[in-house]
Amino acid sequence: MRKQLTIGLFGFGCVGTGLYEVLNQTSLLQARIKHIVVKDATKKRQIDASYFAYDAEVILGDSEVNVVVELINDSDAAYVIVKRALESGKHVVSANKKLIALHLEELIALAKANNVSFLYEAAVGGSIPIIRNLEEYYNNDSLSSINGIVNGTTNYILTKTGEGQSFDDALKTAQELGFAELDPTSDVDGFDAKYKLVLLLKHAFGYTAKTEQVWNYGIRQLKTWDATYAREKGYKIKLLAFGTRVDDQVVGFVAPHLIPANHFAYNVENEFNAVVVEALFSDRQLFLGKGAGSYPTASAVLSDISALQFDYAYEYRKTNAQENLTLTTDFRLRVYVSGTTKEQLERVKFEEIQEIYHGSTHHFHIGWANFSDLQQLDWNNESDLFLAVLPEGLQLASTVYAEEGQLEAHAN
Amino acid sequence: MRKQLTIGLFGFGCVGTGLYEVLNQTSLLQARIKHIVVKDATKKRQIDASYFAYDAEVILGDSEVNVVVELINDSDAAYVIVKRALESGKHVVSANKKLIALHLEELIALAKANNVSFLYEAAVGGSIPIIRNLEEYYNNDSLSSINGIVNGTTNYILTKTGEGQSFDDALKTAQELGFAELDPTSDVDGFDAKYKLVLLLKHAFGYTAKTEQVWNYGIRQLKTWDATYAREKGYKIKLLAFGTRVDDQVVGFVAPHLIPANHFAYNVENEFNAVVVEALFSDRQLFLGKGAGSYPTASAVLSDISALQFDYAYEYRKTNAQENLTLTTDFRLRVYVSGTTKEQLERVKFEEIQEIYHGSTHHFHIGWANFSDLQQLDWNNESDLFLAVLPEGLQLASTVYAEEGQLEAHAN
Repeated sequence: MRKQLTIGLFGFGCVGTGLYEVLNQTSLLQARIKHIVVKDATKKRQIDASYFAYDAEVILGDSEVNVVVELINDSDAAYVIVKRALESGKHVVSANKKLIALHLEELIALAKANNVSFLYEAAVGGSIPIIRNLEEYYNNDSLSSINGIVNGTTNYILTKTGEGQSFDDALKTAQELGFAELDPTSDVDGFDAKYKLVLLLKHAFGYTAKTEQVWNYGIRQLKTWDATYAREKGYKIKLLAFGTRVDDQVVGFVAPHLIPANHFAYNVENEFNAVVVEALFSDRQLFLGKGAGSYPTASAVLSDISALQFDYAYEYRKTNAQENLTLTTDFRLRVYVSGTTKEQLERVKFEEIQEIYHGSTHHFHIGWANFSDLQQLDWNNESDLFLAVLPEGLQLASTVYAEEGQLEAHAN
Repeated sequence: MRKQLTIGLFGFGCVGTGLYEVLNQTSLLQARIKHIVVKDATKKRQIDASYFAYDAEVILGDSEVNVVVELINDSDAAYVIVKRALESGKHVVSANKKLIALHLEELIALAKANNVSFLYEAAVGGSIPIIRNLEEYYNNDSLSSINGIVNGTTNYILTKTGEGQSFDDALKTAQELGFAELDPTSDVDGFDAKYKLVLLLKHAFGYTAKTEQVWNYGIRQLKTWDATYAREKGYKIKLLAFGTRVDDQVVGFVAPHLIPANHFAYNVENEFNAVVVEALFSDRQLFLGKGAGSYPTASAVLSDISALQFDYAYEYRKTNAQENLTLTTDFRLRVYVSGTTKEQLERVKFEEIQEIYHGSTHHFHIGWANFSDLQQLDWNNESDLFLAVLPEGLQLASTVYAEEGQLEAHAN
């Protein structure tokens, strides 16, 4: 029984334009965009100005509109729109990871209370159908880890630094190509990846993490010697959104990782994204695809719209099954930390230093550090330091894992 | 609205045992196995004999059983069971690619006529949720190609031959490890991959191929010098189930391919499977996971069972949308063909030879050959020859592609 969908679209930027074109090119879906609301009446757009409205009420007050697609950048404005839409009994499709990560429980409750769906496949991994697969395909499997390259901008930059460019040059190229914004903070400091990780943790483990509890360290402080070290050792540096679960403990953080050649994510380059899922029964799975871009992201939005024809809604079954999960910081990481001076480097507290390097340009330590000790520093703003997690470099403090030895959460 | 599922299970081999264990370990699913029917009453099994019945009617005649899970090897016997089950108004979950590929349209029609679901996620790619994603996620996108490593046995063997083992030794190891059967024909000659390709073509393009129309050439004739050639050129040899669509023409065949290092499938080793989907909007996507094994395959079966709780059925929307597709043989391939003698090699008709090699142990040609010319030979039984398709080595004869030049169907 397919439902007739009448869409109100907020935003006509890269993804909104893509969705418009994609909807026009597909014959399989019975859906039409009735209104497009944008902020700026003066901006020149691909299609005639008569298609646009500038007042949110045009959509929110139209009872014929049963689907609101929210594709604007401003997460505060998006919050108001999405809330109003759900309260008005309209289904909502959003790609706004920041909005969703910040207000997840509230929006889920609101959708439920109003008996509508709130879908956001495009918010994580662009074209990769990871949320839907976590919901549908792994809904009876027990997931032990989920980690991914979920930010195309930093992956592009890291591909270039891996080829020998400096971080600044690579960022500049990314900005020129439109992969990075003028203020790249959200991408390069790992905020964007963190918001996505919050959604992954929810759908993989049923755990709702508060964004401020999840450590995000990006790649802004990467130096050429760090890239050189990685290359010489046969690693690539990738920014991983990392989540793992052991019993009732959840670990979740965003940080650069040194990835060996046999790792699933090793060949994931440029703007591609990838998510690796490890589960008890289905074992290790990789999902790889374009993490950004007009059409790939629009295709994920389209897929959500299509699912609404059949009244699809996320069930959050893992949430119902898991009651007592906690986000732990009681673990240690095996890390590579470089510093421009010996003094700067020595500010980083290690539990056990295994390798020391002193050179004319820089210094580094390799060893085990407690996660809570590492968090004493504001890493994104420590311009003299750079940190990357080494392969198989996580140990939980809990007794079980003290006995079983190293948690192979980072294995391929 | 979740349905109570009462399962009748046929077969208690590797996957059946896995399913039994997996069902016992998951708390999220409301399903119970009421009967297990097996063929051999004398065989020793993990659980007590009292659990088993030996007459199919125990399941098929029990009106309380609403789901039949068919996990037996014999595709003829499976056909009888599945047909009877569907006719009795029971949902069917099967992993039997041969059965499904041979009787696809009949079984789809039967399920529809009896208003039940016929699901078979485990039939392709083991744990990889490719059928469901093709059905659900790409249902409004226009797919241009789907190709995959869908046979774990041959991929394991090819991993070993890539490391320097002979085909015979690698096959023997695979047999000892239980990856290959005593009669390996179905795997090593590409029949198994062909059956899976038939299912992929159906769900990707909406085209139902007859199995006898799809060329399957395996890896039995691979010589050490072919593996050496690949290695020296930086390729890996992978057995690809290859499907592409251009306008109303479909290409589908199974053959060894020389895969370059930047190809998504390059790092897919051992028993892993991978499927690469290319679509108009979502661009290129890779799904990678374990293609075989008790738990991974059982997890796919479990996922189908879980979907039945919500009355899920494949919609075959692409089939409805695409009426005039034909399987074409009117294309040419760029191939590497080696022969033990010059005379043997010269039996292979090329349209254009680009490279010739003569040596003391073997000879090879590289160039373009018409697909229909290649099909004149019974390749699986030509012990003096070996063929592999080169990267970007497919050109359709149709005018469009003559103008646009080479179809980049093989690109990464």
